[in-house]
Amino acid sequence: MKLSQIAQLLNGQLVNLREDIEIRGLKSINKAKKGEITFVADKKYLKDLQINASAVLTKEKLDLEIPQIIVDNPQTSFYRLIDIFYPEEEKAGISKKASISENVEIGENVYIGEFTVIEEGVKIGSSVKIYPNCYIGKNTVIKDNTVIYPNVVIYRDAVIGKNVIIHSGCVIGADGFGYYQENGKHKKIKHVGKVIIEDDVEIGANTTIDRAMVDETVIKKGTKIDNLVMIAHNCEIGENSIIVSQVGIAGSCKIGKNVILAGQVGVADHITIGDNVIVTAKSGVGKNLEAGKVYGSGLQAIEWSKWKKVMFYLYKLPEIIKKLK
Amino acid sequence: MKLSQIAQLLNGQLVNLREDIEIRGLKSINKAKKGEITFVADKKYLKDLQINASAVLTKEKLDLEIPQIIVDNPQTSFYRLIDIFYPEEEKAGISKKASISENVEIGENVYIGEFTVIEEGVKIGSSVKIYPNCYIGKNTVIKDNTVIYPNVVIYRDAVIGKNVIIHSGCVIGADGFGYYQENGKHKKIKHVGKVIIEDDVEIGANTTIDRAMVDETVIKKGTKIDNLVMIAHNCEIGENSIIVSQVGIAGSCKIGKNVILAGQVGVADHITIGDNVIVTAKSGVGKNLEAGKVYGSGLQAIEWSKWKKVMFYLYKLPEIIKKLK
Amino acid sequence: MKLSQIAQLLNGQLVNLREDIEIRGLKSINKAKKGEITFVADKKYLKDLQINASAVLTKEKLDLEIPQIIVDNPQTSFYRLIDIFYPEEEKAGISKKASISENVEIGENVYIGEFTVIEEGVKIGSSVKIYPNCYIGKNTVIKDNTVIYPNVVIYRDAVIGKNVIIHSGCVIGADGFGYYQENGKHKKIKHVGKVIIEDDVEIGANTTIDRAMVDETVIKKGTKIDNLVMIAHNCEIGENSIIVSQVGIAGSCKIGKNVILAGQVGVADHITIGDNVIVTAKSGVGKNLEAGKVYGSGLQAIEWSKWKKVMFYLYKLPEIIKKLK
Repeated sequence: MKLSQIAQLLNGQLVNLREDIEIRGLKSINKAKKGEITFVADKKYLKDLQINASAVLTKEKLDLEIPQIIVDNPQTSFYRLIDIFYPEEEKAGISKKASISENVEIGENVYIGEFTVIEEGVKIGSSVKIYPNCYIGKNTVIKDNTVIYPNVVIYRDAVIGKNVIIHSGCVIGADGFGYYQENGKHKKIKHVGKVIIEDDVEIGANTTIDRAMVDETVIKKGTKIDNLVMIAHNCEIGENSIIVSQVGIAGSCKIGKNVILAGQVGVADHITIGDNVIVTAKSGVGKNLEAGKVYGSGLQAIEWSKWKKVMFYLYKLPEIIKKLK
Repeated sequence: MKLSQIAQLLNGQLVNLREDIEIRGLKSINKAKKGEITFVADKKYLKDLQINASAVLTKEKLDLEIPQIIVDNPQTSFYRLIDIFYPEEEKAGISKKASISENVEIGENVYIGEFTVIEEGVKIGSSVKIYPNCYIGKNTVIKDNTVIYPNVVIYRDAVIGKNVIIHSGCVIGADGFGYYQENGKHKKIKHVGKVIIEDDVEIGANTTIDRAMVDETVIKKGTKIDNLVMIAHNCEIGENSIIVSQVGIAGSCKIGKNVILAGQVGVADHITIGDNVIVTAKSGVGKNLEAGKVYGSGLQAIEWSKWKKVMFYLYKLPEIIKKLK
Repeated sequence: MKLSQIAQLLNGQLVNLREDIEIRGLKSINKAKKGEITFVADKKYLKDLQINASAVLTKEKLDLEIPQIIVDNPQTSFYRLIDIFYPEEEKAGISKKASISENVEIGENVYIGEFTVIEEGVKIGSSVKIYPNCYIGKNTVIKDNTVIYPNVVIYRDAVIGKNVIIHSGCVIGADGFGYYQENGKHKKIKHVGKVIIEDDVEIGANTTIDRAMVDETVIKKGTKIDNLVMIAHNCEIGENSIIVSQVGIAGSCKIGKNVILAGQVGVADHITIGDNVIVTAKSGVGKNLEAGKVYGSGLQAIEWSKWKKVMFYLYKLPEIIKKLK
């Protein structure tokens, strides 16, 4: 694509261009080479940097000879360029090597890859892509434009909304972890509820979302979930929330809208977290959290020799304070 | 099912019933609608609650017009009802699309789903269900009534007991994480030991249990393991223990009977944990733990602005205490 | 194998042997039985131990009647014996039940298992083993002698080096977790970069390594990664590092050579960790770490009743210290 075309597409002002050049790819500022375009989010990142890109998106004209496109927000303009340069993989048709049971409804323009198994009563909307080696359990519903990457398992009765993306290795709808005691043994509480994933949700690789006991585990519209996250039975995650990698949410929690749970946060069961809450990385949540606030309990690694001393006194705090009194 | 039948099945006393009604489903108390039955674990949950269920299981008669079944333990009665209302999925027969190697023994009434691979020398007991897209490695033994959900991988030589449930995405018997140094490089210690899963164990989705170096990694009878748990090579987990989601147990640990490791607990290698120990969520275990005690080191998220102050003084504790002295 | 042969292979000195014996297996010292050989890493482990092995590798002659092979390093000699006793599984040929797209290059002596899908443009070196139910995305390159266990997913465009081992359930190259805000919603930043895994890397079961936005996520030569690890988009992990189970590394981190991140460590995004750093288990890394040092912030589980008191005073530290002043 010509640089002039790119400038036009992004509604940007082209400067320093002597003659039009061909842009073949996109890279970040310290990786971009000849023929590639990059962006500068902030001038301060330019310091000491040797720029080899053929063009750069920027908010203010840079004091460089390199061709530049001046745009309001170089970062989001760059993201738009990615969408343009790398169109979605074309995938269509139902592989003869897939296994489609009876009584399955399949919309138009659907892709079902090799060795994927679709069980009885499944309903698949139009333009859905289900990559190879997936398993879609009985009576599950998958709505329009949803993409399911290879080796995803969805147990029976789930409802997956429109424009959902589920990455490889996800397991949706496995039994909730629930037992009761009988004669000193753990007896399984059968889980027959549903998982409902609303529209525009994305779920990262190897994440697990368990089915409810008799009700529903719900991930609401627009929420984004990273890799290796655990969401237990009967949870409800509000709209547009962000659940970062390796977070664990125990059973029956109610997480609000626009919540951010940073990496490796753990939430105990039956907790309510209000809207717009942020929980910082590695924190443990054992009490309800009020809307709109930032919470944390994560510790920061320091030199081990110092940390050992801190721990030594930390564990002695009760005695030390008693003595002080 | 008629409400009168349910009362009879549960050996309960039916009150407030004017004419018999049909129960079509089970829900929790604030989700149940007309035609559904629910339960009240404790009267206090009733406060301010609008109950739309057609019937309710309860320990004491409630001051409500709704038909009630009085039972000793409404909760476990409800669990029994789930089992009755939702019988196990009928699955039988060996799919022609599965790949069964030579020298495989398969018991009666076995289900093997599409695209599942059974390698040489595998022995499968009767009434075993292996869902699609699984891989069962050479010489593995799977005993009666065990259920293996889709996309499970069991490496070679494992022994899986009776009535075991393994959820999707589990990996049983991958190599233990062990290396030795040779010329400044990590050389792999080959792992050729076994994984043994005893009877009545359940293993959650995407959990990994590694094979031992030359001996055995053992999960004993009746232990229940949640999703995304890591159990390393040569561990032995005692009977009837509960390992909650995202727990990590490093190599060669010996965990006792009836132990509970709550979510995101980490256990260092070569640790012994006695019987009946409880470790609270997010704790780190670096020393042996004595039987029958409760241990913890998890922190509780508070407002971030306050937590920062706590951390500030925590990291200064050695200096502060020195000064005090 | 005769004990005398083993002694010769290991270049060891055979003592206490009256007549040559047949060794049929290897076990650890407290598990080994008749016909099996074991090793003693340190004499102190012998205390109170009833040894039933038929032979033992040891550094110094033990005061026991059992036949012994004296070697410099019994542990590594034992590892060598494992390699000899248990040769690699012979696997060759491309299953007719695999699905190989057009324009795929496959080297000599390659194994591709049942129901594995190889997409267009993939290049596979010689002596590569890809077990069943894997998915290898478009244009991915897999170099010589690499082993990919069942149910691994590699998205398009990845480069996997020589002698790499990838365990079951791994997902390589899923989209990085990146969004920008538009009208109060999370808009997906498309990720079109690569994952590059260099030679001699091993990756544990159910680990996820995300693709970069436009550049590369790189795991350098000789690095070993355990199970259930998360490595986010645009990270670079240096040579010969050790990443233990359940570690999470957020986006755009640069981890040095010979680094050890112990179990459940979390690293925030854009962090640089110098060469030879060790981070102890469960620590949170929020700042750059200097080369050659040991860091930590993990806590140690103690009795819960005591821990509650420690926490009580910990959370009151700001007030306590204010009062003291």
